[in-house]
Amino acid sequence: MLRLEIHPQLLDDCHWLGSLKFCELLLHKNALVPWFILVPQTRARDFFDLGVSERDSVMGEAAALAVFVKNHFAVPKINFAAIGNIVPQLHIHVVGRRPGDACWPLPVWGHLSQTGAYSADDLKAIVSALIRSVGLSPGS
Amino acid sequence: MLRLEIHPQLLDDCHWLGSLKFCELLLHKNALVPWFILVPQTRARDFFDLGVSERDSVMGEAAALAVFVKNHFAVPKINFAAIGNIVPQLHIHVVGRRPGDACWPLPVWGHLSQTGAYSADDLKAIVSALIRSVGLSPGS
Repeated sequence: MLRLEIHPQLLDDCHWLGSLKFCELLLHKNALVPWFILVPQTRARDFFDLGVSERDSVMGEAAALAVFVKNHFAVPKINFAAIGNIVPQLHIHVVGRRPGDACWPLPVWGHLSQTGAYSADDLKAIVSALIRSVGLSPGS
Repeated sequence: MLRLEIHPQLLDDCHWLGSLKFCELLLHKNALVPWFILVPQTRARDFFDLGVSERDSVMGEAAALAVFVKNHFAVPKINFAAIGNIVPQLHIHVVGRRPGDACWPLPVWGHLSQTGAYSADDLKAIVSALIRSVGLSPGS
């Protein structure tokens, strides 16, 4: 069960995978790059409007997720960002990148023109690995 | 005096403003948006390769800089990112954004096609304000 209301645009763009301690965890539907999104349990709109302990919670979960993404998808690089110019709800991007991927070396935002989809089996495997690696409480 | 060697691409794209306790502070030469870059004193390449205390230092300086950018440039929004797909040295973007600015609502990376320049007086005023607000040790 969702503990906070996630913006419909994020739910439209992403698979909701489940909950961490402080953030909901989403996976962008475009499977060409492993693109995760954290949505913190907060009403703050801007990343730096978070209090220090909230920010530390987000950063801890983002760091664990970054390690997972590097290992699980064998990517050497993480792109990390809080942008939110379009969707006002605070959300943080953790994107695994590798030279030669679908929009390397450009960032994914506004540059990822092709699309690919995860299969149901792909999603199951990712959720299982996240349960083990980062303590995900799965969404269903 | 620079305490660490800053990648020539960053020095080419930016004005070096001076040093904070942990990071060197740069300002992107494109004055159309207030686009600051922090370069931490570290050999880590990826943001999440920083140790927790190094990461906390960067986040503290980024947070203070974000408050400064919002106030000084009267922008409602900060875009915050560690990307580094092109320049391998770890650097963190703190970009002030407002609806209607030169590439709103797209992120600046790869989308800011026009350019504008800071005058010497603009730069002096920004450095003076940064000395007062975030304890910048100016570069010259």
